[in-house]
Amino acid sequence: MKGAEEKIYNSPYMVLDPKDHFGAWNQVFQNHNPIHVEIGMGKGNFIIENAKRYPEINFIGIEKFDSVIVRAIEKLEVEEPLQNLKLIRMDALHIMEVFDHEITTVYLNFSDPWPKKRHQNRRLSSPLFLQKYDSLFCQEKQIVMKTDNRSLFAYSIMSIANYGYQLTELSLDLYQDNVKDNIPTEYEERFANQGFPIYKLVAKKHD
Amino acid sequence: MKGAEEKIYNSPYMVLDPKDHFGAWNQVFQNHNPIHVEIGMGKGNFIIENAKRYPEINFIGIEKFDSVIVRAIEKLEVEEPLQNLKLIRMDALHIMEVFDHEITTVYLNFSDPWPKKRHQNRRLSSPLFLQKYDSLFCQEKQIVMKTDNRSLFAYSIMSIANYGYQLTELSLDLYQDNVKDNIPTEYEERFANQGFPIYKLVAKKHD
Repeated sequence: MKGAEEKIYNSPYMVLDPKDHFGAWNQVFQNHNPIHVEIGMGKGNFIIENAKRYPEINFIGIEKFDSVIVRAIEKLEVEEPLQNLKLIRMDALHIMEVFDHEITTVYLNFSDPWPKKRHQNRRLSSPLFLQKYDSLFCQEKQIVMKTDNRSLFAYSIMSIANYGYQLTELSLDLYQDNVKDNIPTEYEERFANQGFPIYKLVAKKHD
Repeated sequence: MKGAEEKIYNSPYMVLDPKDHFGAWNQVFQNHNPIHVEIGMGKGNFIIENAKRYPEINFIGIEKFDSVIVRAIEKLEVEEPLQNLKLIRMDALHIMEVFDHEITTVYLNFSDPWPKKRHQNRRLSSPLFLQKYDSLFCQEKQIVMKTDNRSLFAYSIMSIANYGYQLTELSLDLYQDNVKDNIPTEYEERFANQGFPIYKLVAKKHD
C-alpha cells in the first residue's frame, strides 16, 4: 500500500492532523454551516454523494483503513472539487479528541456488528460510544444509522432509545418502505439488490 | 351467535361486570399475585397457555368479539380448571374504567395495524393508549408486544420508546433468534410456519 500512503498524504480532502482542529472545525471549512460526520465511511460513496447533494452542510468522513480511504480519494479525483468535504484517517475510539461540541449529525452505516456479547462495547451504537458522541455534539444531536445486520439493529434501537434519544424515523425494510432521497453505500447497494432488508433509524436528542 | 351468547354468560371464566372490580381485582382472584392482561386475546391460546404455565401469575384476557371469545371458552372446557384466568368482553378503549393501578404487564399480540395514518390513534401502541395504560399499571409497568406487521412494529417501537419506556428485549425475527419459552398465538403459529418474521418487544417503565 505504498501508493496508498502517498495518495492519502497528498489528497486535499485529507485532514492529517485532526486533533489540531478540536473545537475549531468551522475554521477548516471557513463557514458556520452544520457539520455531519460519518464514522466508518468505507469507500466513501455515501459521504461524497451527500457532499454533492447538500452544499450547505459540511461533511467529514472517518475511516481507519487506508485500503478503502484510497478508494474514496480516487472517486474524488474525478469529481468537481468539493469545498464541504473532509476525510480523516483514524479509529473512532479517539473521536472525542477531535471534535468538541461542534457537530450535529453522526452517520453509522453498516458498522461492524461485533456479534459476540463480550465485544458489544466495540459496537458503534454501544453506550460507551454514545457517551463519546455526547461530547462531539452541539445542543441538537442526531444519529442516523443503516445496517443489514438484524441483531446489530435490534441492539442499536435499544441502546440508542434507552440512552435518551427520541426515535424519529424507523424502517425495518428501507427499500420496501420506499424512503425517498436515500443515498446508498457501496455495500448497501449490493446487499439491497439481493433482496435483503436494509434497516434504518434516525434518533434525536437535545440538551 | 345465540349459542355463543349463552356460552359466554355461563362460563366461570367470564367476568361480565368488569367495572365493578375497579381497583379490586386481587379480590376476584383471592390472592395478591401479579396481574397480566392481554388486550385482544383472540381465540385465547396465548393467555390460556400462560395461565397453565405460570400459576403464580393471574391472567386476564380481553376481547371484544363474541365469535372468538367463544373459541377460547370451548378450549377451556376441555382443560383442568384454571384459578388464575379470567376473561372480559370489552373494547380496549374503556380499559381505564376497569383497572386502577393494579396490573403489571400488558400483552399486545398481533393487534390490528390500522395502517392508515388518520387511524393511528386506534393502534394499541399509540400514545393515546399508552396514556390509558398508565392508569392500569402498578409502579412496575411492562408491555410485551408481538406482531407480524412491519409498519406497526416500527411505529410501536418509536411510540413506546419515545413515551419513556426502556426497551429490554427486541427481536426482528423471533423464530430466527430462537427465543426460548415463546408461547405462540393461533395467528402467529400459522404465520411463522409460512416463514414470515415475527417481531417482538418487551418494554418497561417505573414510576
